[in-house]
Amino acid sequence: MPLLPSDSVKQVAIVGGTHGNEWTGIYLVKKFEQFPHLIQRSTVNSLPLLANPRAILMNRRYIDRDLNRCFAAEDLTNPDLTGYENQRAKAISTQLLSEQSPPIDLIIDLHSTTANMGLSILVSGEHPFNLKLSAYLSQMYPAVRVCRGIQWGEVSPTLRSLVPLGFAIEVGAIAQGMLDAALFQQTEQLIYTILDYLEAWNQNARPTIPEQLTLFQAITAVDYPRDATGELQAMIHPDLQFQDYQPLRLGDPMFLTFSGETITYNGSATVFPIFINEAAYYEKGIAMILTEKQQIPID
Amino acid sequence: MPLLPSDSVKQVAIVGGTHGNEWTGIYLVKKFEQFPHLIQRSTVNSLPLLANPRAILMNRRYIDRDLNRCFAAEDLTNPDLTGYENQRAKAISTQLLSEQSPPIDLIIDLHSTTANMGLSILVSGEHPFNLKLSAYLSQMYPAVRVCRGIQWGEVSPTLRSLVPLGFAIEVGAIAQGMLDAALFQQTEQLIYTILDYLEAWNQNARPTIPEQLTLFQAITAVDYPRDATGELQAMIHPDLQFQDYQPLRLGDPMFLTFSGETITYNGSATVFPIFINEAAYYEKGIAMILTEKQQIPID
Repeated sequence: MPLLPSDSVKQVAIVGGTHGNEWTGIYLVKKFEQFPHLIQRSTVNSLPLLANPRAILMNRRYIDRDLNRCFAAEDLTNPDLTGYENQRAKAISTQLLSEQSPPIDLIIDLHSTTANMGLSILVSGEHPFNLKLSAYLSQMYPAVRVCRGIQWGEVSPTLRSLVPLGFAIEVGAIAQGMLDAALFQQTEQLIYTILDYLEAWNQNARPTIPEQLTLFQAITAVDYPRDATGELQAMIHPDLQFQDYQPLRLGDPMFLTFSGETITYNGSATVFPIFINEAAYYEKGIAMILTEKQQIPID
Repeated sequence: MPLLPSDSVKQVAIVGGTHGNEWTGIYLVKKFEQFPHLIQRSTVNSLPLLANPRAILMNRRYIDRDLNRCFAAEDLTNPDLTGYENQRAKAISTQLLSEQSPPIDLIIDLHSTTANMGLSILVSGEHPFNLKLSAYLSQMYPAVRVCRGIQWGEVSPTLRSLVPLGFAIEVGAIAQGMLDAALFQQTEQLIYTILDYLEAWNQNARPTIPEQLTLFQAITAVDYPRDATGELQAMIHPDLQFQDYQPLRLGDPMFLTFSGETITYNGSATVFPIFINEAAYYEKGIAMILTEKQQIPID
Protein backbone atom coordinates (compact mmCIF):
# COMPACT_ATOMS: atom_id res chain seq x y z
CA MET A 1 0.00 0.00 0.00
CA PRO A 2 1.48 3.35 -0.91
CA LEU A 3 1.94 5.77 1.96
CA LEU A 4 0.02 8.46 0.13
CA PRO A 5 -3.07 8.44 -2.05
CA SER A 6 -1.03 10.15 -4.73
CA ASP A 7 2.69 10.19 -5.20
CA SER A 8 3.14 13.63 -3.75
CA VAL A 9 1.69 16.37 -1.60
CA LYS A 10 0.97 19.12 -4.05
CA GLN A 11 -1.72 21.27 -2.45
CA VAL A 12 -1.55 22.53 1.11
CA ALA A 13 -4.08 24.66 2.95
CA ILE A 14 -2.63 26.88 5.68
CA VAL A 15 -5.59 27.90 7.80
CA GLY A 16 -5.77 30.64 10.43
CA GLY A 17 -8.66 32.08 12.38
CA THR A 18 -10.67 28.89 12.72
CA HIS A 19 -11.11 30.50 16.12
CA GLY A 20 -11.49 34.22 15.58
CA ASN A 21 -9.58 35.36 18.67
CA GLU A 22 -6.44 33.27 18.08
CA TRP A 23 -4.31 35.86 16.39
CA THR A 24 -1.07 33.98 15.75
CA GLY A 25 -2.59 32.00 12.89
CA ILE A 26 -4.64 34.94 11.67
CA TYR A 27 -1.65 37.25 11.27
CA LEU A 28 0.51 34.50 9.81
CA VAL A 29 -2.13 33.87 7.14
CA LYS A 30 -2.40 37.62 6.49
CA LYS A 31 1.37 37.69 6.06
CA PHE A 32 1.26 34.76 3.65
CA GLU A 33 -1.54 36.44 1.69
CA GLN A 34 0.66 39.49 1.33
CA PHE A 35 3.85 37.55 0.53
CA PRO A 36 2.64 34.35 -1.19
CA HIS A 37 6.13 33.33 -2.30
CA LEU A 38 6.97 32.51 1.34
CA ILE A 39 4.71 29.45 1.24
CA GLN A 40 5.28 28.27 -2.29
CA ARG A 41 7.77 25.56 -3.16
CA SER A 42 8.60 24.24 -6.63
CA THR A 43 6.34 21.19 -6.11
CA VAL A 44 4.03 22.53 -3.38
CA ASN A 45 1.26 25.08 -3.81
CA SER A 46 -0.06 26.56 -0.57
CA LEU A 47 -3.41 28.21 -0.09
CA PRO A 48 -3.63 30.60 2.89
CA LEU A 49 -7.16 30.73 4.30
CA LEU A 50 -8.90 32.70 7.06
CA ALA A 51 -11.55 30.25 8.17
CA ASN A 52 -13.94 32.35 10.26
CA PRO A 53 -13.92 35.95 8.97
CA ARG A 54 -16.90 37.16 10.98
CA ALA A 55 -15.48 35.82 14.27
CA ILE A 56 -12.12 37.38 13.38
CA LEU A 57 -13.83 40.73 12.84
CA MET A 58 -15.56 40.40 16.22
CA ASN A 59 -12.37 39.08 17.89
CA ARG A 60 -14.37 36.18 19.28
CA ARG A 61 -13.76 32.45 19.19
CA TYR A 62 -16.96 31.94 17.20
CA ILE A 63 -20.29 33.54 16.33
CA ASP A 64 -22.80 30.69 16.77
CA ARG A 65 -20.69 27.64 17.60
CA ASP A 66 -17.14 26.33 17.55
CA LEU A 67 -16.22 26.08 13.85
CA ASN A 68 -13.72 23.35 14.64
CA ARG A 69 -16.62 21.09 15.66
CA CYS A 70 -18.65 21.63 12.45
CA PHE A 71 -16.86 19.37 9.99
CA ALA A 72 -18.44 15.98 10.72
CA ALA A 73 -19.48 14.49 7.36
CA GLU A 74 -23.15 14.26 8.30
CA ASP A 75 -23.18 17.90 9.45
CA LEU A 76 -21.64 19.08 6.20
CA THR A 77 -24.56 17.59 4.28
CA ASN A 78 -27.28 18.56 6.76
CA PRO A 79 -29.35 21.42 5.29
CA ASP A 80 -30.95 22.13 8.67
CA LEU A 81 -27.66 23.41 10.12
CA THR A 82 -27.71 27.06 9.11
CA GLY A 83 -25.63 28.77 11.80
CA TYR A 84 -22.75 30.93 10.62
CA GLU A 85 -20.07 28.37 11.43
CA ASN A 86 -22.07 25.56 9.80
CA GLN A 87 -22.26 27.67 6.65
CA ARG A 88 -18.54 28.37 6.83
CA ALA A 89 -17.74 24.67 7.30
CA LYS A 90 -19.72 23.79 4.18
CA ALA A 91 -18.08 26.59 2.20
CA ILE A 92 -14.58 25.63 3.36
CA SER A 93 -15.21 21.99 2.57
CA THR A 94 -16.31 22.89 -0.94
CA GLN A 95 -13.43 25.30 -1.40
CA LEU A 96 -10.73 22.89 -0.29
CA LEU A 97 -12.06 19.67 -1.75
CA SER A 98 -14.02 20.61 -4.88
CA GLU A 99 -12.90 24.00 -6.09
CA GLN A 100 -9.16 23.45 -5.83
CA SER A 101 -7.56 21.57 -8.66
CA PRO A 102 -6.02 19.33 -7.63
CA PRO A 103 -7.88 19.23 -4.29
CA ILE A 104 -6.08 19.96 -1.03
CA ASP A 105 -3.80 17.13 0.09
CA LEU A 106 -2.80 18.42 3.50
CA ILE A 107 -4.18 20.92 6.00
CA ILE A 108 -2.21 22.91 8.58
CA ASP A 109 -4.69 24.51 10.98
CA LEU A 110 -3.11 27.21 13.16
CA HIS A 111 -4.34 27.64 16.71
CA SER A 112 -3.17 29.24 19.92
CA THR A 113 -3.95 28.41 23.52
CA THR A 114 -3.73 29.98 26.95
CA ALA A 115 -2.19 26.72 28.15
CA ASN A 116 1.58 26.43 28.19
CA MET A 117 1.66 24.09 25.19
CA GLY A 118 4.79 25.60 23.65
CA LEU A 119 4.85 24.41 20.05
CA SER A 120 2.47 21.49 19.85
CA ILE A 121 1.40 19.39 16.90
CA LEU A 122 -2.03 17.80 17.19
CA VAL A 123 -2.27 14.91 14.82
CA SER A 124 -5.61 13.36 14.12
CA GLY A 125 -6.04 9.85 12.86
CA GLU A 126 -3.28 7.33 12.43
CA HIS A 127 -2.01 8.12 9.00
CA PRO A 128 1.67 7.09 8.92
CA PHE A 129 2.57 10.15 6.87
CA ASN A 130 1.37 12.44 9.68
CA LEU A 131 3.38 10.50 12.25
CA LYS A 132 6.47 10.52 10.07
CA LEU A 133 6.28 14.25 9.52
CA SER A 134 5.64 14.82 13.23
CA ALA A 135 8.65 12.70 14.13
CA TYR A 136 10.75 14.74 11.73
CA LEU A 137 9.59 18.02 13.24
CA SER A 138 10.17 16.92 16.81
CA GLN A 139 13.66 15.83 15.80
CA MET A 140 14.33 19.18 14.13
CA TYR A 141 12.89 21.19 17.02
CA PRO A 142 13.26 19.58 20.46
CA ALA A 143 10.69 22.10 21.76
CA VAL A 144 8.01 20.60 19.49
CA ARG A 145 5.70 18.12 21.16
CA VAL A 146 3.26 15.84 19.42
CA CYS A 147 -0.10 14.87 20.82
CA ARG A 148 -3.17 13.10 19.58
CA GLY A 149 -6.69 13.70 20.76
CA ILE A 150 -9.21 11.14 21.78
CA GLN A 151 -9.96 9.46 18.47
CA TRP A 152 -13.04 10.71 16.72
CA GLY A 153 -12.89 7.96 14.13
CA GLU A 154 -14.91 8.60 10.99
CA VAL A 155 -16.99 11.37 12.51
CA SER A 156 -14.24 13.85 13.39
CA PRO A 157 -15.74 17.34 13.44
CA THR A 158 -12.40 19.18 13.10
CA LEU A 159 -11.40 21.22 10.10
CA ARG A 160 -8.12 19.37 9.70
CA SER A 161 -9.99 16.07 9.33
CA LEU A 162 -11.36 17.11 5.92
CA VAL A 163 -8.37 15.26 4.46
CA PRO A 164 -6.28 12.42 5.89
CA LEU A 165 -3.05 14.44 5.91
CA GLY A 166 -2.41 17.29 8.28
CA PHE A 167 -2.66 18.51 11.81
CA ALA A 168 -3.32 21.47 14.01
CA ILE A 169 -0.47 23.51 15.44
CA GLU A 170 -1.20 24.81 18.93
CA VAL A 171 1.08 27.47 20.38
CA GLY A 172 0.99 28.92 23.86
CA ALA A 173 0.74 30.14 26.47
CA ILE A 174 -0.78 33.17 24.80
CA ALA A 175 -3.89 35.14 25.63
CA GLN A 176 -6.65 35.53 23.07
CA GLY A 177 -6.71 38.64 20.94
CA MET A 178 -3.02 39.39 21.00
CA LEU A 179 0.30 38.48 19.40
CA ASP A 180 3.44 37.10 21.00
CA ALA A 181 6.28 37.80 18.60
CA ALA A 182 8.49 34.93 19.76
CA LEU A 183 5.71 32.37 19.33
CA PHE A 184 4.73 33.99 16.02
CA GLN A 185 8.23 33.54 14.66
CA GLN A 186 8.57 29.98 15.95
CA THR A 187 5.28 29.01 14.35
CA GLU A 188 6.28 30.65 11.09
CA GLN A 189 9.58 28.74 11.08
CA LEU A 190 7.77 25.48 11.77
CA ILE A 191 5.50 26.06 8.76
CA TYR A 192 8.48 26.67 6.47
CA THR A 193 10.11 23.48 7.74
CA ILE A 194 6.93 21.55 6.97
CA LEU A 195 6.80 22.94 3.45
CA ASP A 196 10.48 22.16 2.94
CA TYR A 197 9.83 18.61 4.10
CA LEU A 198 6.96 18.25 1.62
CA GLU A 199 9.14 19.62 -1.14
CA ALA A 200 11.88 17.12 -0.30
CA TRP A 201 9.31 14.32 -0.09
CA ASN A 202 7.92 15.19 -3.50
CA GLN A 203 11.42 15.14 -4.94
CA ASN A 204 12.18 11.78 -3.33
CA ALA A 205 14.89 13.37 -1.21
CA ARG A 206 13.48 11.77 1.92
CA PRO A 207 14.95 13.27 5.10
CA THR A 208 16.14 11.00 7.88
CA ILE A 209 13.33 10.27 10.32
CA PRO A 210 13.88 9.09 13.88
CA GLU A 211 12.80 5.50 14.51
CA GLN A 212 10.50 6.51 17.34
CA LEU A 213 8.07 9.30 18.05
CA THR A 214 7.14 10.47 21.54
CA LEU A 215 3.37 10.83 21.35
CA PHE A 216 1.15 12.24 24.09
CA GLN A 217 -2.06 10.27 23.57
CA ALA A 218 -5.17 11.80 25.14
CA ILE A 219 -6.96 9.48 27.55
CA THR A 220 -9.63 11.61 29.14
CA ALA A 221 -10.69 15.15 29.89
CA VAL A 222 -10.99 16.39 33.48
CA ASP A 223 -13.40 19.16 34.47
CA TYR A 224 -13.06 21.67 37.29
CA PRO A 225 -14.78 20.91 40.58
CA ARG A 226 -18.19 22.57 40.28
CA ASP A 227 -21.29 22.86 42.43
CA ALA A 228 -24.72 21.54 41.45
CA THR A 229 -25.43 24.63 39.36
CA GLY A 230 -22.17 24.27 37.43
CA GLU A 231 -20.46 27.13 39.27
CA LEU A 232 -16.67 26.74 39.55
CA GLN A 233 -15.43 25.66 42.96
CA ALA A 234 -11.70 25.58 42.30
CA MET A 235 -8.84 26.77 40.11
CA ILE A 236 -5.89 24.96 38.60
CA HIS A 237 -3.42 24.51 41.46
CA PRO A 238 -0.44 26.89 41.23
CA ASP A 239 1.91 23.88 41.20
CA LEU A 240 0.18 22.55 38.08
CA GLN A 241 -0.40 25.85 36.25
CA PHE A 242 1.76 26.07 33.08
CA GLN A 243 3.10 22.52 33.69
CA ASP A 244 1.70 21.03 30.48
CA TYR A 245 3.43 17.80 29.38
CA GLN A 246 4.96 17.27 32.84
CA PRO A 247 4.19 14.07 34.80
CA LEU A 248 1.27 14.14 37.22
CA ARG A 249 1.47 11.42 39.85
CA LEU A 250 -0.83 10.06 42.53
CA GLY A 251 -1.12 12.70 45.26
CA ASP A 252 0.16 15.62 43.20
CA PRO A 253 -1.81 18.89 43.56
CA MET A 254 -4.35 19.41 40.81
CA PHE A 255 -6.87 22.03 41.95
CA LEU A 256 -7.06 24.70 44.62
CA THR A 257 -10.54 25.50 45.89
CA PHE A 258 -11.58 29.10 46.43
CA SER A 259 -11.44 28.42 50.15
CA GLY A 260 -7.82 27.33 49.82
CA GLU A 261 -8.01 23.53 49.91
CA THR A 262 -5.80 21.46 47.65
CA ILE A 263 -7.36 18.68 45.59
CA THR A 264 -4.86 16.08 44.48
CA TYR A 265 -4.67 13.68 41.56
CA ASN A 266 -5.99 10.34 42.69
CA GLY A 267 -5.22 8.14 39.68
CA SER A 268 -2.75 5.31 40.00
CA ALA A 269 -1.19 5.82 36.58
CA THR A 270 1.20 8.68 35.95
CA VAL A 271 -0.31 10.95 33.33
CA PHE A 272 0.82 14.03 31.42
CA PRO A 273 -1.80 16.80 31.42
CA ILE A 274 -2.10 19.14 28.45
CA PHE A 275 -4.36 22.10 27.70
CA ILE A 276 -4.17 22.99 31.39
CA ASN A 277 -6.34 26.07 31.95
CA GLU A 278 -7.23 26.70 28.32
CA ALA A 279 -9.65 29.62 28.61
CA ALA A 280 -11.95 28.42 25.83
CA TYR A 281 -12.41 25.05 27.53
CA TYR A 282 -14.15 26.31 30.67
CA GLU A 283 -17.42 26.32 28.73
CA LYS A 284 -16.67 22.84 27.40
CA GLY A 285 -16.17 21.52 30.94
CA ILE A 286 -12.49 20.80 30.47
CA ALA A 287 -9.84 21.89 32.98
CA MET A 288 -7.15 19.81 31.30
CA ILE A 289 -6.71 16.73 29.14
CA LEU A 290 -4.79 13.83 30.59
CA THR A 291 -2.46 12.07 28.21
CA GLU A 292 -0.34 8.96 28.24
CA LYS A 293 3.23 9.34 27.03
CA GLN A 294 3.88 6.74 24.36
CA GLN A 295 6.81 5.78 22.20
CA ILE A 296 5.49 5.02 18.71
CA PRO A 297 7.69 3.18 16.21
CA ILE A 298 8.04 5.02 12.90
CA ASP A 299 8.50 2.87 9.80
CA MET B 1 -7.07 70.48 56.25
CA PRO B 2 -8.03 67.03 57.43
CA LEU B 3 -6.69 64.20 55.31
CA LEU B 4 -10.15 62.69 54.96
CA PRO B 5 -13.58 64.18 54.45
CA SER B 6 -14.70 62.27 57.52
CA ASP B 7 -12.64 60.95 60.35
CA SER B 8 -12.65 57.39 59.12
CA VAL B 9 -13.15 55.11 56.16
CA LYS B 10 -16.27 53.20 57.05
CA GLN B 11 -17.72 51.98 53.76
CA VAL B 12 -15.70 50.24 51.08
CA ALA B 13 -16.88 48.92 47.73
CA ILE B 14 -14.94 45.95 46.38
CA VAL B 15 -15.79 45.78 42.70
CA GLY B 16 -15.17 42.93 40.27
CA GLY B 17 -16.25 42.39 36.69
CA THR B 18 -16.13 46.01 35.59
CA HIS B 19 -14.75 44.18 32.58
CA GLY B 20 -16.73 40.99 32.16
CA ASN B 21 -13.85 38.78 31.01
CA GLU B 22 -11.45 39.62 33.85
CA TRP B 23 -12.17 36.72 36.12
CA THR B 24 -9.82 37.36 39.03
CA GLY B 25 -11.98 40.15 40.41
CA ILE B 26 -15.20 38.39 39.47
CA TYR B 27 -14.41 35.23 41.42
CA LEU B 28 -12.97 37.17 44.35
CA VAL B 29 -16.23 39.13 44.60
CA LYS B 30 -18.23 35.89 44.34
CA LYS B 31 -16.12 34.49 47.18
CA PHE B 32 -16.73 37.60 49.29
CA GLU B 33 -20.47 37.39 48.58
CA GLN B 34 -20.40 33.81 49.85
CA PHE B 35 -18.18 34.54 52.87
CA PRO B 36 -18.92 38.19 53.79
CA HIS B 37 -17.04 38.00 57.08
CA LEU B 38 -13.77 37.90 55.12
CA ILE B 39 -14.15 41.54 54.13
CA GLN B 40 -15.72 42.95 57.29
CA ARG B 41 -13.68 44.64 59.99
CA SER B 42 -14.96 46.08 63.24
CA THR B 43 -14.96 49.63 61.82
CA VAL B 44 -15.13 48.85 58.10
CA ASN B 45 -18.13 47.60 56.17
CA SER B 46 -17.36 46.23 52.71
CA LEU B 47 -19.80 45.88 49.85
CA PRO B 48 -18.84 43.33 47.18
CA LEU B 49 -20.20 44.29 43.78
CA LEU B 50 -20.22 42.71 40.31
CA ALA B 51 -20.27 45.76 38.09
CA ASN B 52 -21.18 44.41 34.65
CA PRO B 53 -23.36 41.30 35.06
CA ARG B 54 -24.37 40.98 31.42
CA ALA B 55 -20.78 41.19 30.18
CA ILE B 56 -19.78 38.65 32.85
CA LEU B 57 -22.46 36.30 31.57
CA MET B 58 -21.20 36.72 28.03
CA ASN B 59 -17.54 36.51 29.15
CA ARG B 60 -16.83 39.70 27.24
CA ARG B 61 -15.12 42.91 28.27
CA TYR B 62 -18.32 44.86 27.64
CA ILE B 63 -21.63 44.74 25.80
CA ASP B 64 -21.90 48.22 24.23
CA ARG B 65 -18.86 50.11 25.49
CA ASP B 66 -16.12 50.01 28.12
CA LEU B 67 -17.91 50.47 31.46
CA ASN B 68 -14.76 51.93 32.97
CA ARG B 69 -15.12 54.92 30.62
CA CYS B 70 -18.77 55.65 31.52
CA PHE B 71 -18.43 57.46 34.85
CA ALA B 72 -17.69 61.03 33.78
CA ALA B 73 -20.07 63.27 35.73
CA GLU B 74 -21.73 64.70 32.63
CA ASP B 75 -22.32 61.21 31.22
CA LEU B 76 -23.95 60.05 34.43
CA THR B 77 -26.56 62.78 34.09
CA ASN B 78 -27.00 62.53 30.32
CA PRO B 79 -30.39 60.90 29.57
CA ASP B 80 -29.40 60.32 25.94
CA LEU B 81 -26.79 57.71 26.91
CA THR B 82 -28.85 54.54 27.05
CA GLY B 83 -26.35 51.78 26.22
CA TYR B 84 -26.09 48.93 28.69
CA GLU B 85 -22.89 50.16 30.30
CA ASN B 86 -24.22 53.72 30.55
CA GLN B 87 -27.23 52.35 32.40
CA ARG B 88 -24.98 50.29 34.65
CA ALA B 89 -22.77 53.31 35.41
CA LYS B 90 -25.80 55.33 36.48
CA ALA B 91 -27.12 52.46 38.60
CA ILE B 92 -23.73 51.87 40.25
CA SER B 93 -23.30 55.56 40.94
CA THR B 94 -26.71 55.67 42.63
CA GLN B 95 -26.06 52.46 44.52
CA LEU B 96 -22.68 53.51 45.89
CA LEU B 97 -23.33 57.18 46.54
CA SER B 98 -27.04 57.52 47.36
CA GLU B 99 -28.37 54.18 48.48
CA GLN B 100 -25.60 53.26 50.89
CA SER B 101 -25.78 54.80 54.31
CA PRO B 102 -23.27 56.15 54.93
CA PRO B 103 -22.19 56.42 51.28
CA ILE B 104 -19.12 54.60 50.01
CA ASP B 105 -15.83 56.17 51.16
CA LEU B 106 -13.38 54.10 49.15
CA ILE B 107 -13.52 51.94 46.02
CA ILE B 108 -11.26 49.01 45.17
CA ASP B 109 -11.84 48.08 41.51
CA LEU B 110 -10.36 44.69 40.59
CA HIS B 111 -8.93 44.21 37.12
CA SER B 112 -6.62 41.83 35.34
CA THR B 113 -4.41 42.35 32.32
CA THR B 114 -2.55 40.29 29.74
CA ALA B 115 0.46 42.55 30.39
CA ASN B 116 3.02 41.39 32.92
CA MET B 117 1.93 43.96 35.51
CA GLY B 118 2.34 41.65 38.50
CA LEU B 119 0.38 43.28 41.32
CA SER B 120 -0.18 46.88 40.31
CA ILE B 121 -2.05 49.63 42.05
CA LEU B 122 -3.50 52.32 39.79
CA VAL B 123 -4.18 55.43 41.78
CA SER B 124 -6.21 58.19 40.28
CA GLY B 125 -6.06 61.75 41.46
CA GLU B 126 -3.62 63.11 43.98
CA HIS B 127 -5.39 62.43 47.23
CA PRO B 128 -2.69 62.02 49.90
CA PHE B 129 -4.61 59.19 51.53
CA ASN B 130 -4.34 57.12 48.34
CA LEU B 131 -0.62 57.77 48.10
CA LYS B 132 -0.10 56.94 51.77
CA LEU B 133 -1.97 53.66 51.47
CA SER B 134 -0.10 52.83 48.25
CA ALA B 135 3.22 53.52 49.94
CA TYR B 136 2.22 51.23 52.79
CA LEU B 137 1.26 48.42 50.41
CA SER B 138 4.42 48.68 48.35
CA GLN B 139 6.40 48.54 51.60
CA MET B 140 4.48 45.46 52.76
CA TYR B 141 4.74 43.73 49.39
CA PRO B 142 7.87 44.55 47.40
CA ALA B 143 6.15 42.99 44.36
CA VAL B 144 3.48 45.69 44.44
CA ARG B 145 4.01 48.55 42.04
CA VAL B 146 2.13 51.82 42.01
CA CYS B 147 1.28 53.74 38.89
CA ARG B 148 -0.88 56.69 38.00
CA GLY B 149 -2.58 57.27 34.69
CA ILE B 150 -2.57 60.38 32.64
CA GLN B 151 -4.62 62.71 34.79
CA TRP B 152 -8.27 62.95 33.81
CA GLY B 153 -8.89 65.81 36.19
CA GLU B 154 -12.53 66.47 37.04
CA VAL B 155 -13.88 64.45 34.15
CA SER B 156 -12.43 61.03 34.96
CA PRO B 157 -14.65 58.37 33.40
CA THR B 158 -13.42 55.52 35.60
CA LEU B 159 -15.54 53.71 38.14
CA ARG B 160 -13.02 54.25 40.92
CA SER B 161 -13.24 58.03 40.43
CA LEU B 162 -16.79 58.10 41.86
CA VAL B 163 -15.16 58.90 45.19
CA PRO B 164 -11.80 60.53 45.98
CA LEU B 165 -10.46 57.49 47.82
CA GLY B 166 -9.52 54.29 46.11
CA PHE B 167 -7.77 52.71 43.18
CA ALA B 168 -7.81 49.91 40.69
CA ILE B 169 -5.78 46.78 41.25
CA GLU B 170 -4.39 45.32 38.04
CA VAL B 171 -2.93 41.82 38.12
CA GLY B 172 -1.20 39.97 35.31
CA ALA B 173 -0.05 38.54 33.05
CA ILE B 174 -3.28 36.60 32.81
CA ALA B 175 -5.45 35.82 29.80
CA GLN B 176 -9.08 36.87 29.75
CA GLY B 177 -11.69 34.37 30.78
CA MET B 178 -9.55 32.30 33.12
CA LEU B 179 -8.17 32.16 36.63
CA ASP B 180 -4.57 32.01 37.78
CA ALA B 181 -4.60 30.68 41.33
CA ALA B 182 -1.34 32.33 42.39
CA LEU B 183 -2.47 35.78 41.23
CA PHE B 184 -5.91 35.15 42.73
CA GLN B 185 -4.41 34.48 46.14
CA GLN B 186 -2.01 37.41 45.97
CA THR B 187 -4.84 39.77 45.06
CA GLU B 188 -6.98 38.37 47.87
CA GLN B 189 -4.16 38.91 50.37
CA LEU B 190 -3.66 42.46 49.15
CA ILE B 191 -7.35 43.23 49.73
CA TYR B 192 -7.19 41.92 53.30
CA THR B 193 -4.11 44.04 53.93
CA ILE B 194 -5.95 47.12 52.65
CA LEU B 195 -8.92 46.42 54.93
CA ASP B 196 -6.60 45.85 57.89
CA TYR B 197 -4.92 49.17 57.13
CA LEU B 198 -8.30 50.94 57.06
CA GLU B 199 -9.24 49.29 60.34
CA ALA B 200 -6.00 50.45 61.93
CA TRP B 201 -6.47 53.93 60.47
CA ASN B 202 -9.97 54.17 61.90
CA GLN B 203 -8.66 53.13 65.29
CA ASN B 204 -5.87 55.69 65.12
CA ALA B 205 -3.29 52.92 65.18
CA ARG B 206 -1.51 54.42 62.18
CA PRO B 207 1.01 52.02 60.64
CA THR B 208 4.47 53.24 59.76
CA ILE B 209 4.58 54.58 56.22
CA PRO B 210 7.76 54.93 54.18
CA GLU B 211 8.79 58.51 53.52
CA GLN B 212 8.84 58.02 49.80
CA LEU B 213 6.73 56.25 47.21
CA THR B 214 8.03 55.00 43.89
CA LEU B 215 5.36 56.08 41.46
CA PHE B 216 5.24 55.21 37.76
CA GLN B 217 3.56 58.26 36.28
CA ALA B 218 2.04 57.78 32.83
CA ILE B 219 3.36 60.20 30.23
CA THR B 220 1.92 58.99 26.96
CA ALA B 221 0.44 56.03 25.16
CA VAL B 222 2.17 54.46 22.17
CA ASP B 223 0.27 52.68 19.42
CA TYR B 224 1.45 49.81 17.24
CA PRO B 225 2.82 50.65 13.82
CA ARG B 226 -0.17 50.42 11.46
CA ASP B 227 -0.82 50.98 7.79
CA ALA B 228 -3.20 53.61 6.41
CA THR B 229 -6.21 51.35 6.97
CA GLY B 230 -5.27 50.77 10.61
CA GLU B 231 -4.00 47.24 10.01
CA LEU B 232 -1.23 46.16 12.39
CA GLN B 233 2.25 46.17 10.91
CA ALA B 234 4.24 44.98 13.90
CA MET B 235 4.18 43.16 17.24
CA ILE B 236 5.73 43.96 20.59
CA HIS B 237 9.38 43.02 20.24
CA PRO B 238 10.29 39.77 22.04
CA ASP B 239 12.89 41.66 24.09
CA LEU B 240 10.16 44.00 25.40
CA GLN B 241 7.35 41.46 25.85
CA PHE B 242 6.56 40.92 29.56
CA GLN B 243 9.12 43.60 30.53
CA ASP B 244 6.62 45.96 32.16
CA TYR B 245 8.20 48.45 34.61
CA GLN B 246 11.69 47.85 33.19
CA PRO B 247 13.67 50.77 31.75
CA LEU B 248 13.41 51.43 28.02
CA ARG B 249 16.30 53.46 26.65
CA LEU B 250 17.11 55.14 23.37
CA GLY B 251 17.80 52.43 20.80
CA ASP B 252 16.15 49.58 22.72
CA PRO B 253 13.93 47.25 20.63
CA MET B 254 10.26 48.14 20.84
CA PHE B 255 8.43 46.49 17.94
CA LEU B 256 9.11 43.71 15.47
CA THR B 257 7.42 44.07 12.09
CA PHE B 258 5.79 41.07 10.46
CA SER B 259 8.61 41.08 7.96
CA GLY B 260 11.13 40.79 10.79
CA GLU B 261 12.47 44.33 11.15
CA THR B 262 13.15 45.77 14.60
CA ILE B 263 11.78 49.21 15.47
CA THR B 264 13.61 50.83 18.34
CA TYR B 265 12.66 53.40 20.95
CA ASN B 266 13.82 56.79 19.75
CA GLY B 267 13.10 58.96 22.78
CA SER B 268 15.95 60.59 24.61
CA ALA B 269 14.48 60.06 28.08
CA THR B 270 14.54 56.65 29.72
CA VAL B 271 10.97 55.53 30.25
CA PHE B 272 9.27 52.57 31.95
CA PRO B 273 6.57 51.00 29.76
CA ILE B 274 3.52 49.41 31.37
CA PHE B 275 0.46 47.64 29.96
CA ILE B 276 2.73 46.20 27.29
CA ASN B 277 0.58 44.10 24.94
CA GLU B 278 -2.67 44.39 26.89
CA ALA B 279 -5.11 42.55 24.62
CA ALA B 280 -8.01 44.93 25.27
CA TYR B 281 -5.93 47.94 24.25
CA TYR B 282 -5.40 46.95 20.61
CA GLU B 283 -8.81 48.44 19.81
CA LYS B 284 -7.92 51.55 21.81
CA GLY B 285 -4.75 52.06 19.76
CA ILE B 286 -2.43 51.43 22.70
CA ALA B 287 0.54 49.07 22.48
CA MET B 288 1.92 50.24 25.81
CA ILE B 289 1.90 53.22 28.14
CA LEU B 290 5.19 54.96 28.81
CA THR B 291 5.75 56.07 32.37
CA GLU B 292 8.28 58.13 34.23
CA LYS B 293 9.63 56.64 37.44
CA GLN B 294 9.20 59.19 40.22
CA GLN B 295 10.01 59.34 43.89
CA ILE B 296 7.10 61.03 45.67
CA PRO B 297 7.50 62.29 49.23
CA ILE B 298 4.85 60.97 51.59
CA ASP B 299 3.85 63.23 54.47
